[in-house]
Amino acid sequence: MAKTDWKAEAKAMKKQLKLLREAAIPAVPPKKAKPVSPLAPATFPDLPRIAGVEFAACEAGVRYKNRRDVMLIRLAPGTAMAGVFTRSTTRSACVRDCQAKLAVKAPADIGAAIIVNSGNSNAFTGQVGEEAVAAVTTATAAALGLPATRVFSSSTGVIGEPLPHDRITTVIPQLVADLSDDAIDMAAQAMMTTDTFPKGASATIAGEGGPIHIAGIAKGSGMIAPDMATMLVYIFTDAKITANALQRLLSKHVDATFNSITVDSDTSTSDTLLLAATGLSPAAPPKGPVLKAFEAALHDVMRNLAHQVVRDGEGATKFVEVRVTGAATDDDAHKVALAIANSPLVKTAIAGQDPNWGRIVAAIGKSGAQADRDSLTIRFGDITVAKNGWRDPDYREEDGAAYMLQPELVIGVDMGLGKSNRSVWTCDLTARYIEINADYRS
Amino acid sequence: MAKTDWKAEAKAMKKQLKLLREAAIPAVPPKKAKPVSPLAPATFPDLPRIAGVEFAACEAGVRYKNRRDVMLIRLAPGTAMAGVFTRSTTRSACVRDCQAKLAVKAPADIGAAIIVNSGNSNAFTGQVGEEAVAAVTTATAAALGLPATRVFSSSTGVIGEPLPHDRITTVIPQLVADLSDDAIDMAAQAMMTTDTFPKGASATIAGEGGPIHIAGIAKGSGMIAPDMATMLVYIFTDAKITANALQRLLSKHVDATFNSITVDSDTSTSDTLLLAATGLSPAAPPKGPVLKAFEAALHDVMRNLAHQVVRDGEGATKFVEVRVTGAATDDDAHKVALAIANSPLVKTAIAGQDPNWGRIVAAIGKSGAQADRDSLTIRFGDITVAKNGWRDPDYREEDGAAYMLQPELVIGVDMGLGKSNRSVWTCDLTARYIEINADYRS
Repeated sequence: MAKTDWKAEAKAMKKQLKLLREAAIPAVPPKKAKPVSPLAPATFPDLPRIAGVEFAACEAGVRYKNRRDVMLIRLAPGTAMAGVFTRSTTRSACVRDCQAKLAVKAPADIGAAIIVNSGNSNAFTGQVGEEAVAAVTTATAAALGLPATRVFSSSTGVIGEPLPHDRITTVIPQLVADLSDDAIDMAAQAMMTTDTFPKGASATIAGEGGPIHIAGIAKGSGMIAPDMATMLVYIFTDAKITANALQRLLSKHVDATFNSITVDSDTSTSDTLLLAATGLSPAAPPKGPVLKAFEAALHDVMRNLAHQVVRDGEGATKFVEVRVTGAATDDDAHKVALAIANSPLVKTAIAGQDPNWGRIVAAIGKSGAQADRDSLTIRFGDITVAKNGWRDPDYREEDGAAYMLQPELVIGVDMGLGKSNRSVWTCDLTARYIEINADYRS
Repeated sequence: MAKTDWKAEAKAMKKQLKLLREAAIPAVPPKKAKPVSPLAPATFPDLPRIAGVEFAACEAGVRYKNRRDVMLIRLAPGTAMAGVFTRSTTRSACVRDCQAKLAVKAPADIGAAIIVNSGNSNAFTGQVGEEAVAAVTTATAAALGLPATRVFSSSTGVIGEPLPHDRITTVIPQLVADLSDDAIDMAAQAMMTTDTFPKGASATIAGEGGPIHIAGIAKGSGMIAPDMATMLVYIFTDAKITANALQRLLSKHVDATFNSITVDSDTSTSDTLLLAATGLSPAAPPKGPVLKAFEAALHDVMRNLAHQVVRDGEGATKFVEVRVTGAATDDDAHKVALAIANSPLVKTAIAGQDPNWGRIVAAIGKSGAQADRDSLTIRFGDITVAKNGWRDPDYREEDGAAYMLQPELVIGVDMGLGKSNRSVWTCDLTARYIEINADYRS
């Protein structure tokens, strides 16, 4: 190798850094025009208004320029709250703050608020990070006449930089003045980072005495590029439901939805999902078949938003369901599905439209789950590729190759051992992912 | 999205496949000239001859054309054997066969042999796969006058295709005739698949009554692209040592060497490491300080070969040591090191020469190990980047950026919790990795 002149390299780098800092290069949008994911829905959906939920968003200049980067959500008195969060041991100050506040039983007659910024995740910022959370939530509480224990916050963006919280507190009066029940789309946009489209989903069911609505928004595009692409999700309903019941539902359905997606196997320090029920629907508290319908509708909204996060996976060109059936245990089914969905070799094969089922066999083998070669069946969609410990004699490579050309794929694995099933959703691994994460510095 | 004419696509694909098959496209070298890894050693080392070990390699046309693809190793009577293997539950027929044979106590006065082919891994080939192993090892045994239980085999290449074992058995007489104690380099070359260079390492120590030699060869370039880039390692010594003692040494040192490297977190169905001791050194059986020196030398050879596999990581441009210290337990140290070394976000940042320490924090957080934000210290080489729960006030981004320009990097993480240390070696994740694995079908 030619000998490198480190000093010259370092000087050149220093100059570049200076120029970059002077230009205060906006992290979103990047200089290169960012194409919308080919897997994105055609449009942002028309979400129903949820009685008791108001939104506002504005430009605070936390890091980005010329775009809204802070959003506020006001929730009516009596709103019940539930949440699930990243399990990272290095999770951010606002995640810890949300968790602490949810653990406190709230008085029945007061409202709540959620304030979210993009551009800076306030993660790994030590004591000043905790102070920043306190500053933002206290100022929001004061402006809305709420106790600070009822103001939840999220931050998404670079790690390890102090959050310029004064830029957020400065715009709080404007946010409060702008609150409207018709601005959920603006809120969805304000929290975008590497996302190429805002994400929303909704459902309406017939309650006893009137309709019950659910509407949710999400951001996230890597799972999860920690300095840019944390997953944040806020779901609202007008159902009359207690905080405890709400938390039970959320915890029950998060496994088969948000915990069943993966883009790159990485976990954010800031993942947050908050679910708020205002109780302002004319419908009676859901129970019996209505509660079942509500639960199914909530599951659908959660899964829909989770799928949109995968569809916005960095560089993704394929949306893939890995459907594992017949596993010995639930845990095994999850292990196998995740091992396949996270395998760089499987994901690059999908990017290359290559029906490379050998890599699926290898991923099953390394998953740690009980597996028996001779009981395995592997399918691409309806095409049986391998069974009885070998390639299906009727399988033709041409059929597999033709199947892989589609943008939405189902990889089916039947373990032939038991009754446990699990689906995990993922996307392919493309050169564009590398570009986004290697060539583009936040 | 424009509507795709699947039929036309499928027909085009079929035609391509036909052409490819007709051309019997050689998998190695690919049509595109394959550049040698920039991290490769300058030359293949000059390995000492090990008394009692002979090699031969020839062209059998298992899959590749115009190159040697089968190699045979004959080991003198009295050779002790030990081995470690992939833990994949879908491991190949020859791995299962080696494991079964090693479990049998061998008579003291007979020799052994190893026969290896590239181009076809004979994995997930059902009953015919087991028959192929039997055919190859039986024919080798007959030609060498050995019991079949003393013939070990390995196969590396595509998964799920029947191994054309007759092509191998046909060349056995030629291999036997060609056996020579001076052909270890040819053996190293014959087992290459996506490897860009053959791998060898050696050590010599002073025994009581004469020198003791160790020499080893390896192949592997993804860790592990299951259809092309399995890791195979064969190490030889003339030390007088029992099979049990040899197995104990191998098992002890595999954790900090071959089990501490990762290219892409994928595990092969065929990984095999065999260690053979001929006992033909004039030196007495190693004990006391000689045994210690022997053990250290064996460790060095194993680590050296393991590092070479990482240096040949598909598309690699950086060789990275992740050095974790101060973890609460050995298991935690390993978890943290592997979480960092396998994180696509960390690996793409390294490819982009980006000192993105936030991604390291996130990887620590998701590792599952005990971690305390305020006790963590993160270093790039000697540069302290973060400590006490935040960026080191003396850290300058320019220094980190200059450090990342080097081809060999050390990422240091001190957990500040205990006394457990662990190093893991890996490489960066580049667009070239995607190209190799997506655009290039075995």
